[in-house]
Amino acid sequence: MTTHASHLDQTHDALLSSWITSANDPATDFPIQNLPYCAFEEKGVRRLATRIGDTIVDLGLLAASPAFAACLAKEKAPEPGIALALASGDLARVAVLGRGAGRAIRRALSHLFNASTPDLRDDAALRAKVCKDAASCTLVLTHRIGDYTDFYASIDHASTVGAMFRPDNPLLPNYTWVPIGYHGRASSIVISGTSVRRPRGQTKADDANAPVFGPCKLLDYELEVGAFIGRGNARGSSIPIGEAGEHILGLCLVNDWSARDLQKWEYQPLGPFLAKNFATTISPYIVTLDALEPFRVPARPRTGDLPAPLPYLDDDADQNRGGFDIRVEAWIDTPAMRSAGQGPARLSRGSLRHMYWTLAQMLTHHASNGCNLEPGDLIASGTVSGPEPDARGCLLELTWDAPGKPRKPVTLPGGETRTFLQDGDRVILRGACEAEGFRRIGFGACEGTITPVEG
Amino acid sequence: MTTHASHLDQTHDALLSSWITSANDPATDFPIQNLPYCAFEEKGVRRLATRIGDTIVDLGLLAASPAFAACLAKEKAPEPGIALALASGDLARVAVLGRGAGRAIRRALSHLFNASTPDLRDDAALRAKVCKDAASCTLVLTHRIGDYTDFYASIDHASTVGAMFRPDNPLLPNYTWVPIGYHGRASSIVISGTSVRRPRGQTKADDANAPVFGPCKLLDYELEVGAFIGRGNARGSSIPIGEAGEHILGLCLVNDWSARDLQKWEYQPLGPFLAKNFATTISPYIVTLDALEPFRVPARPRTGDLPAPLPYLDDDADQNRGGFDIRVEAWIDTPAMRSAGQGPARLSRGSLRHMYWTLAQMLTHHASNGCNLEPGDLIASGTVSGPEPDARGCLLELTWDAPGKPRKPVTLPGGETRTFLQDGDRVILRGACEAEGFRRIGFGACEGTITPVEG
Repeated sequence: MTTHASHLDQTHDALLSSWITSANDPATDFPIQNLPYCAFEEKGVRRLATRIGDTIVDLGLLAASPAFAACLAKEKAPEPGIALALASGDLARVAVLGRGAGRAIRRALSHLFNASTPDLRDDAALRAKVCKDAASCTLVLTHRIGDYTDFYASIDHASTVGAMFRPDNPLLPNYTWVPIGYHGRASSIVISGTSVRRPRGQTKADDANAPVFGPCKLLDYELEVGAFIGRGNARGSSIPIGEAGEHILGLCLVNDWSARDLQKWEYQPLGPFLAKNFATTISPYIVTLDALEPFRVPARPRTGDLPAPLPYLDDDADQNRGGFDIRVEAWIDTPAMRSAGQGPARLSRGSLRHMYWTLAQMLTHHASNGCNLEPGDLIASGTVSGPEPDARGCLLELTWDAPGKPRKPVTLPGGETRTFLQDGDRVILRGACEAEGFRRIGFGACEGTITPVEG
Repeated sequence: MTTHASHLDQTHDALLSSWITSANDPATDFPIQNLPYCAFEEKGVRRLATRIGDTIVDLGLLAASPAFAACLAKEKAPEPGIALALASGDLARVAVLGRGAGRAIRRALSHLFNASTPDLRDDAALRAKVCKDAASCTLVLTHRIGDYTDFYASIDHASTVGAMFRPDNPLLPNYTWVPIGYHGRASSIVISGTSVRRPRGQTKADDANAPVFGPCKLLDYELEVGAFIGRGNARGSSIPIGEAGEHILGLCLVNDWSARDLQKWEYQPLGPFLAKNFATTISPYIVTLDALEPFRVPARPRTGDLPAPLPYLDDDADQNRGGFDIRVEAWIDTPAMRSAGQGPARLSRGSLRHMYWTLAQMLTHHASNGCNLEPGDLIASGTVSGPEPDARGCLLELTWDAPGKPRKPVTLPGGETRTFLQDGDRVILRGACEAEGFRRIGFGACEGTITPVEG
């Protein structure tokens, strides 16, 4: 175990239990130690919330209560600012307040939902107002995401994909020095559960003289982790790596759907565009960096020929505990599996700890040229693949065998095979942290089903 | 002349004059035939406006007047929606109303500012409320731009830049088929007049073993034209090319500042990132597509080996009049030139008409995979370069001679030379349309000055 007691407080204590008894189930993603942000829609209005066990808690209404105000007062936190931000229905307004405000909110929630705290537990009227059955809530995006950036931080992913195109030289020379990333499309980010229409686009067969326009034939998912920006930086300024963590609000799961045949034909020389921007699915829950503190691990070691990071990306604390052991999995179910009453099948499992670049390095690099990151912006990790074959986070990698060899389809329960996704297939990403002495902290599911497109 | 009378109405009539007499100066960018959108800030509040001659007109206040309402009533336009949108201070709310609403606003303004219309001309109180001296106004962005996409639509630019890296094969095979584009950064889009700090970043000399981090040494501008999205499309739907024009609100000038040394080291395999996202400057005026109708020209012909567009990008009307003869220029002044009292010097001049892809093709391609374009999103053309050497729209091209030869610096008045931009240099982009029988329609200036960064 590589935890760091100095960054932990009583909110992480595994012995804490809640009067919301479903939160005390060891298998839940949402114990009282998690307290992620989410949002639900009610009568056309977006309301910020957290989730505890099976309960969604309306944070705007809760923050207006004297009990919550009393908690913040003890924290010496700026109460009116926090309560107004939580009531706004816009998580970017909470993000801009920074980690200090986030910690005050976390401690207030941890106190109010503690099994031994009567304020809300014994106030049936307030409880009825702020607590909702999660199954009855329509979850929505927590805010309008301004900019979305996708990195390429898994050296295992970059090496495998590179080997498909350059067997002798899989990694480009810049990879080990530069946290490679590109801008994604913010408008097409959708919440888990939204269906994704198969995109159409230009593709060209290797032996064809001209491309054709039609439905994508090589549709893939990418299993990623996303980080939402908390406090931003002014344009022209940068973020020292030692302060990067203070600029991260929390993490989510990201499925960067990818049209591999469109990508192959379009991506030179300016990178992926229509192959990626038709949809990106994120999980509804944003797990705060504070909830994840117990699961920090060292950054992936720079062994062998791998160079040390340049000074602006090099920080002892980041090397020692800049990784996060978030275990992520991709699952699939198909129409046939659903008809047969079979549950989803797991395609891969990995951990964010294997990434070559830490979240802090990605964020510091992003702002190093003076680019302004804004509260609520999304930064994704790129496909989370690990060194093991079953840790490949997309079908492009999972079905690849060796240079010159045909792809090896994945065999699913019931005998079906998949090289890429078919219409009706549902992809489910899951993520959770587990470590001895701590409650499990989960991300919920990030799922989407492919729907057909006309010719 | 290639104009199309069927798309013109009385608002384009060159004989129209305004009671704002500065609009009648033949040299102005802003005759009564232009009527671009802009915004200014007053007491911390953003207000939508148009410009006529030397006057900024507050559209929110004007739209609340009975005179304006009477104009809209004649149009059978949805008055309350239009007036509320103009009063909102958010041009995206006007954009979403579509071209029909835009035309109604244009005709109302054309009528009210016509020399012979007394309503506003003779109402001193209303005039004092809505008309402001442009020199006293602080112009700001008209709305928060959701997503920004930059294309690469000049085949001359792509060929010249390609020849630097691949002398024998300058154009990649996809270029003539795919409108190549990539996502840019929306947060760092700034309005003309904002200074731009020289970015820092990783660069690697060809003969070095490792990169270094420091100030960019090869800082460049790119002369582009931008299109703002009007009505958007739902995610999963596309925009037929015949309807693309109905989804464009208007055009502006764009300077896509570029750090060439950062770009060279970072751009493989996912495209430009930190080399471009530190700042993008746009002109304050958005010239509507309606104002530009008289300056439509045929698309660049597909001569020689150039293939016809694939059917989804092929439209007779677009081929016949999908180009715009917008003449664009880049100018520079340096600290030494300013000290010597010299005016700016022109670096290049070109026309949007030379682009390989039309704006309609770019927009239709962008949405062809189901990507949702949102009202107020920005799409830029990529560097506007033409076939002539003086039509190269960036220093990367202007100072390039031939493969293997050293760069040829540009010589400025006073004897200074520039290969790339130095601190204190100011770059000014200008654009205007001129055609016999029509008033000149201008874009104003899009300028920015480079400020230094510490080591």
